[in-house]
Amino acid sequence: MASVAQLTGVSVSTVSKVLNGHEGVAAETRRRVEAALSEHGYRRPRVTAPASILDLVFFGLMGDLSTEIIKGVDRVAAESGLAVAVTDTRSGDPGVRAWSQRLLARRPTGIIVVHSRMTPEEHGQLAASGIPLVIIDPMGDPRHATPSVSGTNWSGGVTAAQHVLDLGHRRIAVISGPTELLCARARLEAIRASLDGAGRPLDDRLVRTAHFDFDDGLLAAEELLGLPARPTAVLCGNDLQALGVYEAARRAGLRIPEDLSVVGFDDLPLASHVPPPLTTVHQPFGDMGEVAARMLVSLTAGVRPQQLRVELATSLVVRASTAPPASS
Amino acid sequence: MASVAQLTGVSVSTVSKVLNGHEGVAAETRRRVEAALSEHGYRRPRVTAPASILDLVFFGLMGDLSTEIIKGVDRVAAESGLAVAVTDTRSGDPGVRAWSQRLLARRPTGIIVVHSRMTPEEHGQLAASGIPLVIIDPMGDPRHATPSVSGTNWSGGVTAAQHVLDLGHRRIAVISGPTELLCARARLEAIRASLDGAGRPLDDRLVRTAHFDFDDGLLAAEELLGLPARPTAVLCGNDLQALGVYEAARRAGLRIPEDLSVVGFDDLPLASHVPPPLTTVHQPFGDMGEVAARMLVSLTAGVRPQQLRVELATSLVVRASTAPPASS
Repeated sequence: MASVAQLTGVSVSTVSKVLNGHEGVAAETRRRVEAALSEHGYRRPRVTAPASILDLVFFGLMGDLSTEIIKGVDRVAAESGLAVAVTDTRSGDPGVRAWSQRLLARRPTGIIVVHSRMTPEEHGQLAASGIPLVIIDPMGDPRHATPSVSGTNWSGGVTAAQHVLDLGHRRIAVISGPTELLCARARLEAIRASLDGAGRPLDDRLVRTAHFDFDDGLLAAEELLGLPARPTAVLCGNDLQALGVYEAARRAGLRIPEDLSVVGFDDLPLASHVPPPLTTVHQPFGDMGEVAARMLVSLTAGVRPQQLRVELATSLVVRASTAPPASS
Repeated sequence: MASVAQLTGVSVSTVSKVLNGHEGVAAETRRRVEAALSEHGYRRPRVTAPASILDLVFFGLMGDLSTEIIKGVDRVAAESGLAVAVTDTRSGDPGVRAWSQRLLARRPTGIIVVHSRMTPEEHGQLAASGIPLVIIDPMGDPRHATPSVSGTNWSGGVTAAQHVLDLGHRRIAVISGPTELLCARARLEAIRASLDGAGRPLDDRLVRTAHFDFDDGLLAAEELLGLPARPTAVLCGNDLQALGVYEAARRAGLRIPEDLSVVGFDDLPLASHVPPPLTTVHQPFGDMGEVAARMLVSLTAGVRPQQLRVELATSLVVRASTAPPASS
C-alpha cells in the first residue's frame, strides 16, 4: 500500500479507502489508485468478514415472478446494508444436506420464504430457529402464525369474472389451479360467486383443474375447445395456463379474441408481449417483496409489525385477448 | 435449552443441534424439540456469524435469463457451502452509495458479474479489489483480461441463417441488437457471411438495429412488413425482439409461419410457450452460471483456471415459427 501511495502521490489511508470500497475519494484519484494497484498485481489478503444476510428462499426459481420479487427485496436490502442471498431449494444435491440446514448454519439476519410448497417440518424448523421469518405467500394460506404478504386472490377472481360477464359472455369456462392450494380455491370460488350473483351459475362441465403451467393449461383447453358447445371465454388460474389456451386455440384454428376470450392471472411481463396482449389480473410481486423485506427489517429490530398478514390489492389489466362473444 | 431438553427427554446437545441446524438428529426428535422451543417462545440471541458469500451481480434482473443463471450458480454454491448474494445494480437508491462500494464493503469470497453494461470504472474497481472475479458475458466481449464465460454468438448466427436458407427463403430480414455490442455484431456478421456464402448477399434495406426488447422489435418489424417487397423471414437478435415481430405480424394480419418465418436467439422458456412455438438459437444460461461458479471456486482456492475464456456452444432449436416461404 505504501509503494502504491508513493507512486500515485496520495496518502496510504486513501489507498486503503479505495481497496475497501469506502467513500471520500475523488473519482479521478480512485481511478489512478486502482490502475496502480492492478498494474502491480496487488491481491488483497483473503479475510472472512462478518456480513449481514437476508435470506430469500424460492421453491423453484421461475422467471419474471421470481425476479420481480428479488428486485423488491433488493430495494429495501440496499437501504439497510443487507446482502440478499437467494436460495433455490430445487438446486443442489438433495442428498448432501437439506436447504434449511444449510441456510440456518449460515445464521442470516432474517429469512423471507416464497411459500409455495414448504412442508410443515421445514416451516417448523425455520420458525423454531429464532431467526426472524416472513413469508411471501402467493398461495394465500392464512393457517399459520408467521407474518406474511400475499395478494387478494378472491377480489382478483371477482374482477376477472365481472369483466367477461360485462362483455356479454354466457358460456364461461374456468381453468383453475390445483384446488388443494387455497389461492386457486379463492379464485375459483370468487368466479362461481360472481356468476351466481349475475344469475348465470357456473356450468361444472366447463371447469377444469390443472397445474399452474403451460402444458396443463394446453391440455385443459384442448378438452374445453373440443366440447360440443365450446366456451366463448376462458378464465385461467395464471398467465402460463393462459398461454396454453393460446396454443390450443391456434391448433384449433380459433382466433383470440374474435372466437375466444382469454383472461390470465399474475400479469407477468410476458403477458403484454404475447400476440394478442393478454388481459389478466395484476399481482404486485415487486411490492410483495418490498413489503416483506420491510416487515423483516422491522422484526430484526425487535419491532412486531402492526399487521401480521398483509394482502396487497390485485387489479384487472384489460388488453387485447378479450372481446364480446361472436354470437351476441 | 436445559428446560427444553428436560421437557422433551433429550440431551442439551441435541437441543443445540436442532437450534443450529446441524445433522445427527432423528426427524421425529427434531420435530418434538422444535415444537417445544416454539411453544416456549424461545428466540435465539442474535449473533453475527461469518458467512462466505459468492456475489452475483446483474445489470437489471430480467426474468428467465436471470433465474436460469442463478440456478446454475446456486448448484455449485450449494456444494461449496457458499451463500449466493444477488445484487441488481438498478435496485436501490443510486444516490446512497454505488453498488460496487456496497458489495466490496461486505467482502465476498468471490464475485460473478453478468456483464452487460458495466463501466470500465466499475470493472477496474472490482478487478483492483483483489477479490476473485469471473464475468458471465452474454455480450461476448473479449477485450478484457478477466476470466469469462459466454455463448458462441457467431455459430448461433450461422445456424439461424442456414436454417432459413435451407427452407428456401430469399428475402431474409435481420433485426440486430445494438451494433456497439459485440454479441450483436457477431450474430449479424455471421448471418451476412452465411448469406454471402450461399450466393444470396444480405439486402441492407432488410436490416434494422433495435434494442434487445419487445417494443423495439415491434417497431423494426412494422417497418420491415410495410416494405413494398416485404421479407418472408426475419432473423432476430433475441427472443423478446421475436415476440415484437409476432405482434407486428398479428397487427398486419400475417400468419406465422405461413406468411412469415421468425427465428429468435436465447431460447428462454417462454420461446416454447408462445403461439406458435418459436424457432430459436439456444444459449445455455444455466450452464454458463455453473461454469462461471466453478471457475470462481477454483480461483478462490488459488488455482488459475486452465481456460480464461470459455465459450459454450449454442444450438438451433427448430419449432413451429419457421416454414418454407409461400411463394416457393
